[in-house]
Amino acid sequence: MRYELYYWSGIQGRGEFVRLALEEADADYVDVCREDDGEAVMMALLDSDTVARPPFAPPFLKAGKQLVGQTANILQFLGPRHGLAPADEPGRLWTHQLQLTIADLVSEVHDSHHPLASSMYYEEQRREAKKRAADLVAQRLPKFLGYFERVLVRNSRPPKFIVGRKLTYVDLSLFQVISGLRYAYPNAMSRLEKKYSELVGLHDRVQEGPRIAAYLASARRVPHSEQGIFRHYKELDP
Amino acid sequence: MRYELYYWSGIQGRGEFVRLALEEADADYVDVCREDDGEAVMMALLDSDTVARPPFAPPFLKAGKQLVGQTANILQFLGPRHGLAPADEPGRLWTHQLQLTIADLVSEVHDSHHPLASSMYYEEQRREAKKRAADLVAQRLPKFLGYFERVLVRNSRPPKFIVGRKLTYVDLSLFQVISGLRYAYPNAMSRLEKKYSELVGLHDRVQEGPRIAAYLASARRVPHSEQGIFRHYKELDP
Repeated sequence: MRYELYYWSGIQGRGEFVRLALEEADADYVDVCREDDGEAVMMALLDSDTVARPPFAPPFLKAGKQLVGQTANILQFLGPRHGLAPADEPGRLWTHQLQLTIADLVSEVHDSHHPLASSMYYEEQRREAKKRAADLVAQRLPKFLGYFERVLVRNSRPPKFIVGRKLTYVDLSLFQVISGLRYAYPNAMSRLEKKYSELVGLHDRVQEGPRIAAYLASARRVPHSEQGIFRHYKELDP
Repeated sequence: MRYELYYWSGIQGRGEFVRLALEEADADYVDVCREDDGEAVMMALLDSDTVARPPFAPPFLKAGKQLVGQTANILQFLGPRHGLAPADEPGRLWTHQLQLTIADLVSEVHDSHHPLASSMYYEEQRREAKKRAADLVAQRLPKFLGYFERVLVRNSRPPKFIVGRKLTYVDLSLFQVISGLRYAYPNAMSRLEKKYSELVGLHDRVQEGPRIAAYLASARRVPHSEQGIFRHYKELDP
């Protein structure tokens, strides 16, 4: 079966966490918005009055007749089908729990450049963004990254993954978090990273995996930019 | 088996979504932080070096030897065990997808009084909170509440629930959202509610259910306050 991924074509954004899982799984999928009129198709689906279980927002995945929305929920759907999550229920719940904690971090990173409103331009909230970004770097990133580092250390012997002995979608998402934070906050990360060697090591192992390496080298991987979640603004990263 | 719920005792907060499910399920549970030294027990668990799968933050649930964290994940764990979620996988994923959308709304409501940093007092970010709260009321609440109203209308005949024909944990959470928004933004809600009659009807049906009604009348239901997620500040609700 060919999956249909619905997400904005020009950015990594939240869709990238799903793309990484589909790529690692070598799944047959189409990134709908990169096709002709793809975004029109997505908007029509979002606005349709007849979809029984409508998604609130992109990303969402079409699998046969099933529509699955919410990034972490899509990963929870794909994980067991493609060997990217444990088979047992406690293992699946734990994997998903880690993904939901990543989702919380991702929302906080987004709000570091849009603390007042997503509907306003960054330039209209730069002053407030400086304060929120300072708190993100001083308080929140150490709390989140320190947590994932602890879980990694506690999990297993080398080669280390965050759940059990095999790569899961959470490892892929942690790669994306480190990649995004390095782009958005290079100065802060150069200081912080020293404390999170296991996390950095995981990032490197994921990046060097054959399928992910091929994906990152392809045109399918759009670059980081100031349209997505991980945005670089010099004044936010002194 | 007796569940142990770990969450701050003095507030509804995110733990309330779990309490409502445990109460509706008539589950055997202890709200640990309301016992003597309960919060010390919770903090020891959070700080422990030996917990293999440590939660990032409260709420979390102990079920036998299993620790389950992240509000929506706890509900996903409890749902099928207590008839508060569909048994089929597509139904469970859809129910969870709705819960994750509620979690997004809850985070935005929290940030409406803490747009700059959770680590700062409200009084230090009142000016910014006025802007974020204005956007919440003008843009975000209509988007979220309009979505849930559409899903309700699309789902079924009376008596309406949001998934299928039976009450799920999402119905309980939507009750809590309406209850909290009425407390935090009474003026805004008195205007907005008129557009969401199905959602208001669902709130009322949940509130009148025998187990939830008994819970709400008991001392176990702590009142809304300015310590939780749904906070009332006059200046944010002109």
